[in-house]
Amino acid sequence: MASSTSLTLSQVILARATSLHHGSTQSSTDRVSLSTFTGLKSASSTTPLISSSRRAANRRCAALPRTRPGAVKAVSVETAVGQAADTALVEKSINTIRFLAVDAVEKANSGHPGLPMGCAPMGHVLYDEVMRYNPKNPYWFNRDRFVLSAGHGCMLQYALLHLAGYDSVQEEDLKSFRQWGSRTPGHPENFETPGVEVTTGPLGQGIANAVGLALAEKHLAARYNKPDSEIVDHYTYAILGDGCQMEGISNEVCSLAGHWGLGKLIAFYDDNHISIDGDTEIAFTESVDKRFEGLGWHVIWVKNGNTGYDEIRAAIKEAKAVTDKPTLIKVTTTIGFGSPNKANSYSVHGSALGAKEVDATRKNLGWPFEPFHVPEDVKKHWSRHVPKGSALEAEWNAKFAEYEKKYKEEAAELKSIVNGELPVGWEKALPTYTPESPADATRNLSQQCLNALAKVLPGLLGGSADLASSNMTLLKMFGDFQKDTPEERNVRFGVREHGMGAICNGIALHSPGLIPYCATFFVFTDYMRAAIRISALSEAGVIYVMTHDSIGLGEDGPTHQPIEHIASFRAMPNILMLRPADGNETAGAYKIAVLNRKRPSILALSRQKLKQLPGTSIEGVEKGGYIISDNSSGNKPDVILIGTGSELEIAAQAAEELRKEGKAVRVVSFISWELFDEQSDAYKESVLPAAVSARVSIEAGSTFGWEKIVGSKGKAIGIDRFGASAPAGKIYKEYGLTAEAVIAAAKELS
Amino acid sequence: MASSTSLTLSQVILARATSLHHGSTQSSTDRVSLSTFTGLKSASSTTPLISSSRRAANRRCAALPRTRPGAVKAVSVETAVGQAADTALVEKSINTIRFLAVDAVEKANSGHPGLPMGCAPMGHVLYDEVMRYNPKNPYWFNRDRFVLSAGHGCMLQYALLHLAGYDSVQEEDLKSFRQWGSRTPGHPENFETPGVEVTTGPLGQGIANAVGLALAEKHLAARYNKPDSEIVDHYTYAILGDGCQMEGISNEVCSLAGHWGLGKLIAFYDDNHISIDGDTEIAFTESVDKRFEGLGWHVIWVKNGNTGYDEIRAAIKEAKAVTDKPTLIKVTTTIGFGSPNKANSYSVHGSALGAKEVDATRKNLGWPFEPFHVPEDVKKHWSRHVPKGSALEAEWNAKFAEYEKKYKEEAAELKSIVNGELPVGWEKALPTYTPESPADATRNLSQQCLNALAKVLPGLLGGSADLASSNMTLLKMFGDFQKDTPEERNVRFGVREHGMGAICNGIALHSPGLIPYCATFFVFTDYMRAAIRISALSEAGVIYVMTHDSIGLGEDGPTHQPIEHIASFRAMPNILMLRPADGNETAGAYKIAVLNRKRPSILALSRQKLKQLPGTSIEGVEKGGYIISDNSSGNKPDVILIGTGSELEIAAQAAEELRKEGKAVRVVSFISWELFDEQSDAYKESVLPAAVSARVSIEAGSTFGWEKIVGSKGKAIGIDRFGASAPAGKIYKEYGLTAEAVIAAAKELS
Repeated sequence: MASSTSLTLSQVILARATSLHHGSTQSSTDRVSLSTFTGLKSASSTTPLISSSRRAANRRCAALPRTRPGAVKAVSVETAVGQAADTALVEKSINTIRFLAVDAVEKANSGHPGLPMGCAPMGHVLYDEVMRYNPKNPYWFNRDRFVLSAGHGCMLQYALLHLAGYDSVQEEDLKSFRQWGSRTPGHPENFETPGVEVTTGPLGQGIANAVGLALAEKHLAARYNKPDSEIVDHYTYAILGDGCQMEGISNEVCSLAGHWGLGKLIAFYDDNHISIDGDTEIAFTESVDKRFEGLGWHVIWVKNGNTGYDEIRAAIKEAKAVTDKPTLIKVTTTIGFGSPNKANSYSVHGSALGAKEVDATRKNLGWPFEPFHVPEDVKKHWSRHVPKGSALEAEWNAKFAEYEKKYKEEAAELKSIVNGELPVGWEKALPTYTPESPADATRNLSQQCLNALAKVLPGLLGGSADLASSNMTLLKMFGDFQKDTPEERNVRFGVREHGMGAICNGIALHSPGLIPYCATFFVFTDYMRAAIRISALSEAGVIYVMTHDSIGLGEDGPTHQPIEHIASFRAMPNILMLRPADGNETAGAYKIAVLNRKRPSILALSRQKLKQLPGTSIEGVEKGGYIISDNSSGNKPDVILIGTGSELEIAAQAAEELRKEGKAVRVVSFISWELFDEQSDAYKESVLPAAVSARVSIEAGSTFGWEKIVGSKGKAIGIDRFGASAPAGKIYKEYGLTAEAVIAAAKELS
Repeated sequence: MASSTSLTLSQVILARATSLHHGSTQSSTDRVSLSTFTGLKSASSTTPLISSSRRAANRRCAALPRTRPGAVKAVSVETAVGQAADTALVEKSINTIRFLAVDAVEKANSGHPGLPMGCAPMGHVLYDEVMRYNPKNPYWFNRDRFVLSAGHGCMLQYALLHLAGYDSVQEEDLKSFRQWGSRTPGHPENFETPGVEVTTGPLGQGIANAVGLALAEKHLAARYNKPDSEIVDHYTYAILGDGCQMEGISNEVCSLAGHWGLGKLIAFYDDNHISIDGDTEIAFTESVDKRFEGLGWHVIWVKNGNTGYDEIRAAIKEAKAVTDKPTLIKVTTTIGFGSPNKANSYSVHGSALGAKEVDATRKNLGWPFEPFHVPEDVKKHWSRHVPKGSALEAEWNAKFAEYEKKYKEEAAELKSIVNGELPVGWEKALPTYTPESPADATRNLSQQCLNALAKVLPGLLGGSADLASSNMTLLKMFGDFQKDTPEERNVRFGVREHGMGAICNGIALHSPGLIPYCATFFVFTDYMRAAIRISALSEAGVIYVMTHDSIGLGEDGPTHQPIEHIASFRAMPNILMLRPADGNETAGAYKIAVLNRKRPSILALSRQKLKQLPGTSIEGVEKGGYIISDNSSGNKPDVILIGTGSELEIAAQAAEELRKEGKAVRVVSFISWELFDEQSDAYKESVLPAAVSARVSIEAGSTFGWEKIVGSKGKAIGIDRFGASAPAGKIYKEYGLTAEAVIAAAKELS
């Protein structure tokens, strides 16, 4: 299992000797020397500092051997960033992490101390010995990525960022944990805290993001690395807990990670057997190891995650040696390690220890310091990460300069992905249409846009949850992103909507120039809503290509017909909900979606053919709502007909009839409420004059919210019940979504 | 592996002889006699009728042996319902199923023929030989349940219901497949088609429902069975496809099914290696077998699902013999079996074969009949299910009569669960409160209601997704529903929100008197929205206990703070969205939730303490919106303040201040928009008079939709951005959710 067990003592001594040169620029990432290492499943010789009387505690603590404290010979370890600390200092550093977490939670009187206390050892090894990053530039492109999927344990990450020298987490930030305006919110938020890659907390999202980050690395490495220059080359690490493991999304994405062979994804499973409701025995007795083997992962078990530092190191070394599979390192830990009366119980999971238990824990772990104190030797030891990080980035920059000389085109492309600068004039690639262009479904028009954009946007990649041929999302000029063809851009997500959305969040947040899109039927946004919400919250500009957007899909029936979905996204903050009516509007929707890199867009697209309408335009779309036809004058139409998507055609048809009868009728396309809201009052008045209360809207979805647009005197035509299984035309008629209904309403109002 | 292999030939002959007595009341469910059985993994001696030139086809067809058609000796099999057919007749029946599906899809020119063609053999064995049901009473309590989780293949189920004699699927229903008003919609819908247990189509929901059905059986059996009377005793069967397997929800629920040891759950995995995007090789290469072993299931592989009828029979026998674990029978089939040019390809998955290929398939399978024809011998053979079903039910009724004599109390309880009749006066158990009652969080008040109801409602059971101690959902008088204590009523779902919701749908649809509730933080309805939508669509009266319903949860921050969720459910059809403000309203919400057995309820409950308000009442809640205080006269208040949940207290406080200044102020609690909508116009006018446009609403959530209530001249105070991590009081203040803000708005308007 562990190839590192074959390290001889002489190798260890050699390693130790060479590592004594402090500040050495040694950058090998996997030379870990282990003097006390005796195999991953052996007993550790370090000290368990825990005494718990709890039922489950007894069962689990029995596995921890007891020896005298301090009996371990100090060992220094050669690491990715030069010299590691001897074991006593390592332990001191780990306890620093533990107490920063304990103290911050205590001060806030709110938070989750248990995970940081249990995971401090793996956290320390990762951030102090293994990971390559630059604290002074958290956005350095080639950094290793770390995701705390068990986001409630965020004090672990804040403590590590603090020790590593990130400006975002100063001592005062730790002291204002979970307070208004602080950079240390209750769960990790990438938009608040530089150094935090993604936003976690909702369980399972983080490991899914990590799969996206690892996918991005594999993809970019395949596209841009050269035999003489590995310009893209980083690992993605994650820590997930029992909660993450239970969530379906984690199984979805881990199945994909195994399928794709994401060898540089290394996930630590904090196997502490405790969740909020108590021992995991009550709801989680599956064999995670076996499941992950089934999913195609390499699985390693670190039996003593509390003090088995060498076991953790060896596991990482082994994980890196397995390059064709992702690795799950199951690390058995004690939640709240060190707390004599609360460790290994749910009570340490999600609340402050309380002053008395904090004192007892200080005694138990031999920690004489004041709250928030970082001992000088620990501080000094960690201080090397700032210069080291700068050196790593400078080294990479030099490498890139070389690369740029040899591979100009690739370098320019990669640069645009790294910087997020869109190529000049990219939007000219978007197709435009005239009323004479053939009628078509907006899902097909969407494919024309995607394929046009793929030619000019090097960062565009994506796919569908097993509906590529229905969602029309294949990029014809590219093949499939697969284990052995990672340079390709069509991603096959399988029937895994939730995982798909969260993976796209990871891709989007990997590099500002990556523009992921993903697709399924609009109704199945219900499966991925948690991921879409995190796109919105974490400012990940994912493009959601959602086809079959209404009863217009016909025979598949109410399980497949969205009704309330448009309304539900209009209510969600920081989302652009776009429902284009034809080719020009679809092109406009893509223009908006590509431009909004910090706001996800949802495109609701039709299955059925739609006419190319006179008056639609990309420019109109950018306003959110705009007039497509009008025979009134002086901004005083008799009636305003408002439609979106497939129903704009119906509104236009009704207008024609009404005009024949002498009415002054304005037709407004209302493709995006959010964009319209952002326009000036004068513009809004020019489209929807306050004086005109005769307004009729038509949309094949819930009327919920439409009162805002049509006013209390207007009429909203829509669907406030579930759909039905029948040919689309029949349902439209039966549900009253017809030009006749619009005309009747207009006449009643005007 | 297969214990049936030890059957001797003499046993087989004996079995055959006894089974010749047509109409025998033999009811043993697992005596399957197999003359040609040679072990599950052996080659079958029956006929593969497939020729496909496709890449993948070659790989997979190689496993199918070729022999002469008709070479198999006819064997009759003793089954649950008497004599089974000889193999020739079995094959004819199976081809009948195939062609009913082919013909219906062809006529509709829409649908999914591939699955029914591949799964017809297992469908036949289940409905003709194994399952116990009564076609003339699809709701007979003790029937075996069948769930087609791969719901797109619904023509399989319609064909089977038709052959079995269900009134819901007559020949004309098959001919109106997927048409307006038909009983054969595009996916199985329990509310349209008696005989269909649950509503499937959205992948993974069905297997989750099946877990709920099996849970219900295990629970009721444990509560009501007696050593001398197994009054509850049925199996739950499901067919799921590759798509279901990929969905995270299926892993969630299968992990639970394994944990709970649901031995009477038998799931067929239609392993056909084809999904919509093509060969599953492109996105689904995990080892499903290994994963399910890890999940604690018994796994059997039927290598030849196309013609290996005896293999299927033996697998079911084996599955039944394993009583402490659920069984997954992986049945390798050919999608579209029989279609010479389309079998084993995605093209047969989701569209009609086309006239030419239908003809070719008829030739290939030797089917000379007209569309929709059921051959006389097939008809005659299946005709025994009507009398047999009546006999099964009559037998059970007689058994129940005996049971009732001996176990009066249990019988009465079970009867109420079977019939769905609530005990007289149950609602009197609900607690009531006065303004002097201590302030409390509505999540705690909810627990008081749940515990009060548990004493009077025998069908109430449920739990939380690992947040029982936060959601306050434990029933104190009961223990945990677990593998060895299935009679208990606290269900521990683990961190599996999506699975939880769908399992509850299964429980609710098992018996009308079962009232499942489930709980998580309100924001995590995002994880389970697809299941909640199916509750609404399939009329499953699940009670969703959703706590931590706003920024009022405080420090956990925006990942945990719902904003748009209330609005998003107000937009969903057939949902009751209830946000109670105090104890009386919480009790009222439970009254409504329990009474609405065909409409799910979502209770949004506070984490923080709330005052018991004067004027709130259970009766008020039943109206959806009602006046809690008013100092106006003649239905002409100066201003109407409208609040829900935790903000009703703020509205009441603002009213007090305003009244001090001489204003005539009405305070309205708007706990449920849906219920208010259902009131008479007169009542609505008495609460919200049209003449009073000075209206201010306050709700700690999106203002989306509130224009309908406050009108274009009113003011909606709410939150249209994401929340923040800080103590609750601080966020309320920073976000302007204060009495001061309400007062200011009221003054501006009145």
